[in-house]
Amino acid sequence: MLFRQLFDRESSTYSYLIADTQTKTAILVDSVLEQVEQELKLLQELNLTLKFCLETHIHADHITGTSKLREITGCKGIVPANAAANCADRFIRDGEIIKLGKIEIQAIETCGHTDSHMAYLVNQDRVLTGDALLIRGCGRTDFQNGDASQLYDSVTKKLFTLADDTLVYPAHDYRGQTVSTIGEEKQWNPRFVQQTKSEAIIRDRLSFIELMNNLNLANPKKMMEAIPANEGCGKVAMAN
Amino acid sequence: MLFRQLFDRESSTYSYLIADTQTKTAILVDSVLEQVEQELKLLQELNLTLKFCLETHIHADHITGTSKLREITGCKGIVPANAAANCADRFIRDGEIIKLGKIEIQAIETCGHTDSHMAYLVNQDRVLTGDALLIRGCGRTDFQNGDASQLYDSVTKKLFTLADDTLVYPAHDYRGQTVSTIGEEKQWNPRFVQQTKSEAIIRDRLSFIELMNNLNLANPKKMMEAIPANEGCGKVAMAN
Repeated sequence: MLFRQLFDRESSTYSYLIADTQTKTAILVDSVLEQVEQELKLLQELNLTLKFCLETHIHADHITGTSKLREITGCKGIVPANAAANCADRFIRDGEIIKLGKIEIQAIETCGHTDSHMAYLVNQDRVLTGDALLIRGCGRTDFQNGDASQLYDSVTKKLFTLADDTLVYPAHDYRGQTVSTIGEEKQWNPRFVQQTKSEAIIRDRLSFIELMNNLNLANPKKMMEAIPANEGCGKVAMAN
Repeated sequence: MLFRQLFDRESSTYSYLIADTQTKTAILVDSVLEQVEQELKLLQELNLTLKFCLETHIHADHITGTSKLREITGCKGIVPANAAANCADRFIRDGEIIKLGKIEIQAIETCGHTDSHMAYLVNQDRVLTGDALLIRGCGRTDFQNGDASQLYDSVTKKLFTLADDTLVYPAHDYRGQTVSTIGEEKQWNPRFVQQTKSEAIIRDRLSFIELMNNLNLANPKKMMEAIPANEGCGKVAMAN
């Protein structure tokens, strides 16, 4: 397996290129429109055929490169079930698996940041957590039908039940962190964990909801442009 | 082995935390002063003892965190042989190996970007290339006694003789790329490779020197501050 983490500096987004080196087929997760040319160049250099563009959710902070990549490469666009996207070639549901040669990518429904959201477990040893679980953080829950209580369940009852050594690859990082593990986040993620003198304990639901309801964050700069564009797989933006 | 790539956004520097998970000992490569607090927090969370701070070279674009980390943790500072550093606990020479539990980190002298520079081969499967080899690029050669001819040899005669699947982890990237391989760089690095209609051929020495001599880059913003500070392992900056 080839596994490449790619960073879009403007939106602090991580995209992931995953490829099966035998069949030379590839999937791009959470592509960023402004990075499409660089992504295409990399695919060409690595002699890979892009089969799928996969989204963890409808992003509010950047426009997806899916529509442009689909137009150029003929790849299929896959978005989470129930996403308000009128453009997908396939909607993926909880538990479904995408196969790419010998690579297996399994969807884990992890709503709460938005009302449709999937994490993706890749070959059982690493999980792309989207905005559900960030390194020492998590996605906000104050728009796109976000729901802190639902996110609490998605993370504590689903992602935190994966093996402790599962690598965590998030959709964003703002502090230069590139990877973590489930074990680390279960012990040190301040959104979900409280430190006592002797141990780390999972915060209770109400404490998490209160914390999330009091973040008072400004809206993402591109939100008004990005959400409608991404509901069309990024197509609206192509007029620019 | 625990292997963490860490990114300093201001200087676009990658630092690397490498740790032996059995002995819980760690080494930090090319630490950045502004990231020291975050590095210390991560070391504490992962329950690691920092044994060494290692430099690929005397940096011109950021101040190393070595002096501060040494003061706080008691770690040893290691710099390449012949570096104009009056502060090192150890100077490392070509071929020498640093052991960290079962991890072996071997120095490969790769001068040219600066007149003292080491790449580090970690457990034979990945190489920290410093500024000698970047992803689809290389470090400049127009100050700190840089020498394009020497860099040409360091890359083409040393790094490019490593196995094609060796992972390349550079000290910088400015376009969101995180990792490459020796095979990829031998085929696609435009500084060292020319594409013909049918194949990729290694550029000749004179063509590389001419290319490097005509980059016309502005000096790094922090250069006047960083070089003298780093010759003291970052100590000058601690007064700030």
